[in-house]
Amino acid sequence: MLKKALVGISIILSGFMLAACGSVDNLSNDTNSSGSKAKTQLTGQTNSDYYQGVIKNGRYRTSKSRGVSVSQESNQFNIKGFENGLLNISKKEFSTKKYVFQEGQYLSTSQVENWLARKSKSNPTGLNPVKSKSTSPTRRNPIYLSQIDEQDFMVQNGKSLKLSAMTIGLAINSVDYYKKTQYGPTYQTSISSAEAEQHGKQIANQVLQRLRKKKALKNIPIVIALYRSASDDSLVGGNFFAYSLNDDSATKISKWTKVNQKNYVFPLQSNKKGPSTNDEDSFDNFKSTIQGFFPNLSGVTAQAQYTDGSLSGMNVDITTQFYSQTEIISFTQYIQNAAQKYLPANAPIDITVQSTEGIQSFLSRKANEKKFSAHIFNSY
Amino acid sequence: MLKKALVGISIILSGFMLAACGSVDNLSNDTNSSGSKAKTQLTGQTNSDYYQGVIKNGRYRTSKSRGVSVSQESNQFNIKGFENGLLNISKKEFSTKKYVFQEGQYLSTSQVENWLARKSKSNPTGLNPVKSKSTSPTRRNPIYLSQIDEQDFMVQNGKSLKLSAMTIGLAINSVDYYKKTQYGPTYQTSISSAEAEQHGKQIANQVLQRLRKKKALKNIPIVIALYRSASDDSLVGGNFFAYSLNDDSATKISKWTKVNQKNYVFPLQSNKKGPSTNDEDSFDNFKSTIQGFFPNLSGVTAQAQYTDGSLSGMNVDITTQFYSQTEIISFTQYIQNAAQKYLPANAPIDITVQSTEGIQSFLSRKANEKKFSAHIFNSY
Repeated sequence: MLKKALVGISIILSGFMLAACGSVDNLSNDTNSSGSKAKTQLTGQTNSDYYQGVIKNGRYRTSKSRGVSVSQESNQFNIKGFENGLLNISKKEFSTKKYVFQEGQYLSTSQVENWLARKSKSNPTGLNPVKSKSTSPTRRNPIYLSQIDEQDFMVQNGKSLKLSAMTIGLAINSVDYYKKTQYGPTYQTSISSAEAEQHGKQIANQVLQRLRKKKALKNIPIVIALYRSASDDSLVGGNFFAYSLNDDSATKISKWTKVNQKNYVFPLQSNKKGPSTNDEDSFDNFKSTIQGFFPNLSGVTAQAQYTDGSLSGMNVDITTQFYSQTEIISFTQYIQNAAQKYLPANAPIDITVQSTEGIQSFLSRKANEKKFSAHIFNSY
Repeated sequence: MLKKALVGISIILSGFMLAACGSVDNLSNDTNSSGSKAKTQLTGQTNSDYYQGVIKNGRYRTSKSRGVSVSQESNQFNIKGFENGLLNISKKEFSTKKYVFQEGQYLSTSQVENWLARKSKSNPTGLNPVKSKSTSPTRRNPIYLSQIDEQDFMVQNGKSLKLSAMTIGLAINSVDYYKKTQYGPTYQTSISSAEAEQHGKQIANQVLQRLRKKKALKNIPIVIALYRSASDDSLVGGNFFAYSLNDDSATKISKWTKVNQKNYVFPLQSNKKGPSTNDEDSFDNFKSTIQGFFPNLSGVTAQAQYTDGSLSGMNVDITTQFYSQTEIISFTQYIQNAAQKYLPANAPIDITVQSTEGIQSFLSRKANEKKFSAHIFNSY
């Protein structure tokens, strides 16, 4: 029965760039009792920047709480930034060469929804404070916790994958938006960094305790990371500010590691101060060079991430009117040279050129590369 | 005066990957009489797949008939496909290593608009036939010529760029859409391949004669290429079917080279026959593998171009719902393996993964490459 299942697996697994996973074509079903159709596969790996993912019965094993973030978080940058940042923290502790990534299987949609809600008689597991009588922005209890993300890390154990580590991300609001009456105006309660940290750490301890009650999670390392969500009008997501690695059976967080990361939008608003006037000048020079290229101006903005005070990544977004493919080709080549000349060295940089017709071209330079590579999208 | 101008040029030109253009930092102004501010630069070159373009006074030298195609052609695929295809024909005759590309400077917007209109008393230069009395789809004179594209090719001549070759693309309708009354229904006149070829070649001869009357165009090679536009409902552009290289001062086209190129949309509609059941099966296998990955289906379509009966390029477009960044990462790695396994070898292939939030990831394999490279777009 088992052998039958394995034939199917090896077909898809053959040709995979399996980093250090050993003979993964021996992977088999570990839960399904009928056996013959329960096949576990891996997605394959583009490079060691990414974890392989788990496929079950030919389908991606999606999260048990799939879609909760998308439905609850209104700033899209907070969703992508939260997930990407959490993966980067996971990678620090759980190597992409050893571990296989699995979307969270231990927290269900209803569980996550209940945890994200306020504590109440009907919702005793709510991790946000009870609703206060006051509706004053400064006196009410705000909603602190806005997103929960679970990432499971598996290693091969004989013929199956075994859960071996977990990362939990908790996103804490910097602003809580609320209404006093159903269709009334929206009010805001600001949450300071200090409050976010204090409440975030309390919530993290509660989460750790709850996770340890689940049998499969009693004896694995669990990382819990805290994210400060950006406000709804931000053009860049929030940032992680602390995480803890909790060994094996620890039920209380004993040590937090500080994360010093912050995102900016270039050009900076005139009232904001950035971490590096050098980088700002570089971007401004790039921007003005690019913007002069066509008679009608192009919009040029960037998301920039700083880690420990240094630029650790930049996404440049250029929007332009589409006139012709030859203009896009010339523009892209020009951008490539201007980027090489003006944009800060070392940090990975992506540049996309968009028009109302969608993406036109794209340039990229990885952290360890010197030159930008370019791709121009064509059409037949 | 001249030297002053050159200082500015060399700043931008330094560091360019100048293929075979020699010391292009000696390029100077060739027209401006005031001198000091007229600087000619080049865009730089990503690789020898592309021509460098001409920049004048810090701005891209846009076409004199800029925007006419975009305003007159309703199927976007015909615009991109026409321009890309024309560039490919140009590259056959005028090497990207020797020539610099300049957007058409010899046909103005009003000239192109007049040429594209019907011949009449008020528009004697119209290249489309006079309006007939009949409004019957089969008896009226349709509009044959729908787009004109001019591409100039320059070589360095001392300290300036000199026009040395030209390519003209003429797009001929396969369907002419018309109204009998201003707000009435739209009718169609179909134009057969034979008619398109006959009228296209007549128009091409007229165009060549007219071009030769311009002083700068008297003694350069001029390529004229004929394109058959796709119908408005087509999900892929039309195709070039013939071109002629007219040496030096020739005023009459003596020889046409046949272009055997055709575009398809995969999956093929059930009533259409493709050029290769092998390629169709490959695509179907790829598609069904990909579509099973997520619980909710993804749309998977492709544009495929065949040259002389063989697949010469494919653009695969995958649309999916966005749930999370980790899903996109896993999906992209899975696509990379499935593409490697199922999609036809040798031909260059681009794959884009889109959601309602825009492009999520992108994979590409060039003609001479064995493996797909992947890029996943992130956000901070």
